[in-house]
Amino acid sequence: MKDVQNEPDHRNIDLTKVGIKGIKYPMNVLDRANKTQATVATVNMYVHLAHRFKGTHMSRFVEVLNEYCSDLNLSSFFEMLDRIKKILDAPAANLEICFPYFMKKRAPVSGVASMMEYTCKYVGEIHGADRKLFVTVDVPVCTLCPCSKEISAQGAHNQRGIVSVTVRFKDFFWIEELIETVENSASSEVFALLKREDEKFITEQAYDRPMFVEDVVREVTDKLKRDPRFTTFSVEAENFESIHNHSAYAYTEVNT
Amino acid sequence: MKDVQNEPDHRNIDLTKVGIKGIKYPMNVLDRANKTQATVATVNMYVHLAHRFKGTHMSRFVEVLNEYCSDLNLSSFFEMLDRIKKILDAPAANLEICFPYFMKKRAPVSGVASMMEYTCKYVGEIHGADRKLFVTVDVPVCTLCPCSKEISAQGAHNQRGIVSVTVRFKDFFWIEELIETVENSASSEVFALLKREDEKFITEQAYDRPMFVEDVVREVTDKLKRDPRFTTFSVEAENFESIHNHSAYAYTEVNT
Amino acid sequence: MKDVQNEPDHRNIDLTKVGIKGIKYPMNVLDRANKTQATVATVNMYVHLAHRFKGTHMSRFVEVLNEYCSDLNLSSFFEMLDRIKKILDAPAANLEICFPYFMKKRAPVSGVASMMEYTCKYVGEIHGADRKLFVTVDVPVCTLCPCSKEISAQGAHNQRGIVSVTVRFKDFFWIEELIETVENSASSEVFALLKREDEKFITEQAYDRPMFVEDVVREVTDKLKRDPRFTTFSVEAENFESIHNHSAYAYTEVNT
Amino acid sequence: MKDVQNEPDHRNIDLTKVGIKGIKYPMNVLDRANKTQATVATVNMYVHLAHRFKGTHMSRFVEVLNEYCSDLNLSSFFEMLDRIKKILDAPAANLEICFPYFMKKRAPVSGVASMMEYTCKYVGEIHGADRKLFVTVDVPVCTLCPCSKEISAQGAHNQRGIVSVTVRFKDFFWIEELIETVENSASSEVFALLKREDEKFITEQAYDRPMFVEDVVREVTDKLKRDPRFTTFSVEAENFESIHNHSAYAYTEVNT
Repeated sequence: MKDVQNEPDHRNIDLTKVGIKGIKYPMNVLDRANKTQATVATVNMYVHLAHRFKGTHMSRFVEVLNEYCSDLNLSSFFEMLDRIKKILDAPAANLEICFPYFMKKRAPVSGVASMMEYTCKYVGEIHGADRKLFVTVDVPVCTLCPCSKEISAQGAHNQRGIVSVTVRFKDFFWIEELIETVENSASSEVFALLKREDEKFITEQAYDRPMFVEDVVREVTDKLKRDPRFTTFSVEAENFESIHNHSAYAYTEVNT
Repeated sequence: MKDVQNEPDHRNIDLTKVGIKGIKYPMNVLDRANKTQATVATVNMYVHLAHRFKGTHMSRFVEVLNEYCSDLNLSSFFEMLDRIKKILDAPAANLEICFPYFMKKRAPVSGVASMMEYTCKYVGEIHGADRKLFVTVDVPVCTLCPCSKEISAQGAHNQRGIVSVTVRFKDFFWIEELIETVENSASSEVFALLKREDEKFITEQAYDRPMFVEDVVREVTDKLKRDPRFTTFSVEAENFESIHNHSAYAYTEVNT
Repeated sequence: MKDVQNEPDHRNIDLTKVGIKGIKYPMNVLDRANKTQATVATVNMYVHLAHRFKGTHMSRFVEVLNEYCSDLNLSSFFEMLDRIKKILDAPAANLEICFPYFMKKRAPVSGVASMMEYTCKYVGEIHGADRKLFVTVDVPVCTLCPCSKEISAQGAHNQRGIVSVTVRFKDFFWIEELIETVENSASSEVFALLKREDEKFITEQAYDRPMFVEDVVREVTDKLKRDPRFTTFSVEAENFESIHNHSAYAYTEVNT
Repeated sequence: MKDVQNEPDHRNIDLTKVGIKGIKYPMNVLDRANKTQATVATVNMYVHLAHRFKGTHMSRFVEVLNEYCSDLNLSSFFEMLDRIKKILDAPAANLEICFPYFMKKRAPVSGVASMMEYTCKYVGEIHGADRKLFVTVDVPVCTLCPCSKEISAQGAHNQRGIVSVTVRFKDFFWIEELIETVENSASSEVFALLKREDEKFITEQAYDRPMFVEDVVREVTDKLKRDPRFTTFSVEAENFESIHNHSAYAYTEVNT
């Protein structure tokens, strides 16, 4: 059968990224507490396509995914990128893997345990000898508004928010460390399971630590700047405001 | 050209609903303050297909949509259903129209105005001589947890929630009336624009009116039961809990 | 600490469903090929709340989820419902569990294997002695339009579609059996990995088996009617039309 | 009342973007055929926050939105950005406005008219004297696979795809021109309403113009490179493959 993809193309246009997008695949990822954790990832895989080729061979991406889905970690991620680049004979390759990740958390007073979900993302690129990897984790938190507390006789509006941290790093770190950094930088943490004594604790803690989205982003930024493992990072926070039907938002990035 | 859809089918299976789904269309809807309001609707249109026909004629649904999109109200909705049923020679027809709807609201103290978005849905059916129409409106509100207030030294967790009301009715009502009923049944209303004095008011009001999702559903239910225009209705409330990463939920339905 | 939820309510309104919604949890589910499969479920858990109680105890739902998440199957599903009903002292309980489910599939000619994702849902209720369980599976397929084939000199428009089957049953069945029934009732199956010889096979097979959404629903319905295990079922098909920006849709239900 | 946002902050961290996200607002936008078109926009508005301030004043963003929502075009967009920057006394401001946009299209043979929906986005920034504006439009198209056509005895798999074009420009252009450029660069256009003779035309046209995602991106790129109004642009195409449950994807960017 004819290999149509391999035919020449005369429009003289390189394509930055060509590949497959939005494939869902079962995957085992690294877990600090249990060594590995089974999850369901959404994966995008691309290569740079030189102008002389009409198309790429999409099925090969899935073959690489098959090979690596049983063991994803920071080092196998780059092996996967190398493999894509090689098997598709490309000058550059991109890989994006997004998955829900669970950590067992204990409630602050009762100590009851439950599983808390975070969204993680690995986004990486190999371009010739250059290698880049960005790790993102989305952490739900609770924030209580300092302005509302200050001006009101009693109470203060508070809400769930999502803090999203993206890092480049030069030394190994655990996803769990990033999560803990964020959870210590909000008005309070969020849990799947809280008994009444925990709810009291969380409510009072949030009231004692009022924070704007701006404060949350600055707190996380301040902590990550002191950690020499992270060379570049960004922090964003979005509050699903309890008194509005839209979000409050803050974002910053640091290049050290 | 052959009319494949009109060919006979021998499997002897009636289809309850056949048609088009998820078409987006510009639409003018009835507005209490301004007579009409331009919006963008998502529309599903179906007919019952008798077992003897292979298929329906999908293009005719869009022709009906073209005819009626410039003026949607409670009565043109049934005209639209009649037209679908007739043009497709069907024993029954279904129509679902969902759209964002805006009301101008004034902040409670400063009086500054802004536009607040609600999601509305009309779901109707004509089956022989039977006609049914359900109107739904989703109203964002703020709820403050009575348990958290009671057990905590200060503050109380609160959050945005959505209250969704669906009604059948025998006399005309305005969408705006349903919205107001819901907004008066939560810890506080939600606004697009609040100045500092409004934020103080809302914070204190919510603290003074703590309500579970259960309370919100019961308050709305209690009010709708006293309104003779509504023959059947359901009320649901979902709180995007500020201390959890999941929702608290309550639902009930009443048939009077 | 005061139990606010347990306080009396005087509005005299029963609530049909009260509980938690949208919690994501890691879960092990039954798998025909590998005994169990790890996945990530989205769970809703509700109880009926009698009019005399102010609220339910939301944390207990998560405690039940903790107990059962390591082993979900058709029988532990009812144990879970019983446990919710008992622990919350309720006359009725509802449970909805939705999760991505993977099956290894082999391409039709090359035989290369890949993982294919389906969405499964268990929705059940215990009401006094009554027990109901509906199992739904969403199966992506390819459909080729019989009208387009008939009237065109060459080619025919085709597209991805989703067929969603919901069943009540009196005897055990495998999710995999439902999936196979659907995949045999479309113009062709859909795969994560196809080599060139497979793509040829699939393209030609689809061209030889043109089917409207109406045909797909009737084919699946016809097969399920002959299976005595299923007492009630519904079948719906949605085509993401390649020539429109909306879907074609068909639905039917059978009560035997 | 105390202005908490205006208090000093000592963490010495500038924030790149602070503001409101995801607010939905009714908006009138420029329309080539009808002068203006009413739509519903989703809006993000941000300013740069200097390290010395604790927070920004979120309500002022909505006040600016109120002023400009009745008339959005390429020039009022920059007025809006100027106003945000000034009212919030910020060194830089960002504005993102996304909305569904409708064009009346006539079917290729029958000439019947219907409204077709496209998603548009304006993303801009003012930073000191620098001004940037990117306009994006998402255009649904139909693509037919050249490989499938080549290797198969009859037929070829085809599917809906979305082509997304983002441009910076130095001279005025109409959104409608971008849409037409894309619609002429795929296997065929997509319509809301097609009669049988149109369906025949579209099916045959697509079969005669097989195109990979790579081809679509290159065709659009080739045309935009010849248009001196566009200084920088990117083109991406995503195919919702009819034989897979994931997408094929291609992307490129050009800086002239």
